[in-house]
Amino acid sequence: MPLVHISLRAGKPEAYRQAIFDSLYRAMREALSVPEDDQFMTITEHDGANFRHGNAYGVYRSDDVVYIQITVFDTRTTEQKKALYKRAAELLGRNPGIRPENVFVNVLESAKENWSVGHGLAQFA
Amino acid sequence: MPLVHISLRAGKPEAYRQAIFDSLYRAMREALSVPEDDQFMTITEHDGANFRHGNAYGVYRSDDVVYIQITVFDTRTTEQKKALYKRAAELLGRNPGIRPENVFVNVLESAKENWSVGHGLAQFA
Amino acid sequence: MPLVHISLRAGKPEAYRQAIFDSLYRAMREALSVPEDDQFMTITEHDGANFRHGNAYGVYRSDDVVYIQITVFDTRTTEQKKALYKRAAELLGRNPGIRPENVFVNVLESAKENWSVGHGLAQFA
Repeated sequence: MPLVHISLRAGKPEAYRQAIFDSLYRAMREALSVPEDDQFMTITEHDGANFRHGNAYGVYRSDDVVYIQITVFDTRTTEQKKALYKRAAELLGRNPGIRPENVFVNVLESAKENWSVGHGLAQFA
Repeated sequence: MPLVHISLRAGKPEAYRQAIFDSLYRAMREALSVPEDDQFMTITEHDGANFRHGNAYGVYRSDDVVYIQITVFDTRTTEQKKALYKRAAELLGRNPGIRPENVFVNVLESAKENWSVGHGLAQFA
Repeated sequence: MPLVHISLRAGKPEAYRQAIFDSLYRAMREALSVPEDDQFMTITEHDGANFRHGNAYGVYRSDDVVYIQITVFDTRTTEQKKALYKRAAELLGRNPGIRPENVFVNVLESAKENWSVGHGLAQFA
């Protein structure tokens, strides 16, 4: 049930954006052990005037930076999160070829009773 | 003060999207007892290439799936949340007619001091 | 590393939207002491049918309302947050000229290990 919102500059081809979904799904499968077909992801494309990035923390980002906000259960360990960042950067680097400087990830945590994945039920409460 | 961000596939008529707002507002009024006219909601429409859903957890979703992320105070009980999911699925099922499999809700919690609903003030701190 | 998502009605000129970024960045520099060039912000513009606001809490908002959702470390004090709301409303009021009734801010908190600002690393864990 991770819910993933991705923000990037507009203009990348469809295959590029599909590869982002594929690589993130695979990273979540491997690092977070999410179940098969646990894919709940959106991409929002922004014009230059609606997207801003900086170089804080000694990381030299370009217009290809991708903001990835992932909401998950509040049960993940720090080791799992570290594995997620590493694997996401590796896989996104391979396909669609995003430089590791441009992979920005933030995890939000939400308790098990905070999810309804269909049918009006709290499946995990 | 719930802040509600809704994501769905592009192409639904305006009346459909208005009904989503109306049904969610009513569900929040009934299940969370939010005050009158507490409506702070956005919809983002996504092309197919920017929207992905899976069938994890035994729920067979279609392209009509709607991701609803609701940020609220961190004061709600599990019972209130369960009532919200149930009522949202019922009302969205009635109008605009979304199948219960396609109603995906995630609640984010944010402390009272984390809100400013105008005037630069922390009204609830 | 605040990650800032801003939602507003479509149709404002580019200079207006740039001023929102500039004023929020400055407010975060002053109130939260974020480092130089710590700018990770997106704007999403919504048609009228995809954007709803109410007048709850005795605040009379117009179509110019701006929803600002800021994700930060879970280390900020209530005083820092209050300073942020105040300064954001002041600076947005000056440029681009948003009335204080229309500045709606929500802060989400995310632990230090929940951030990777590039290179697949958990820089703050």
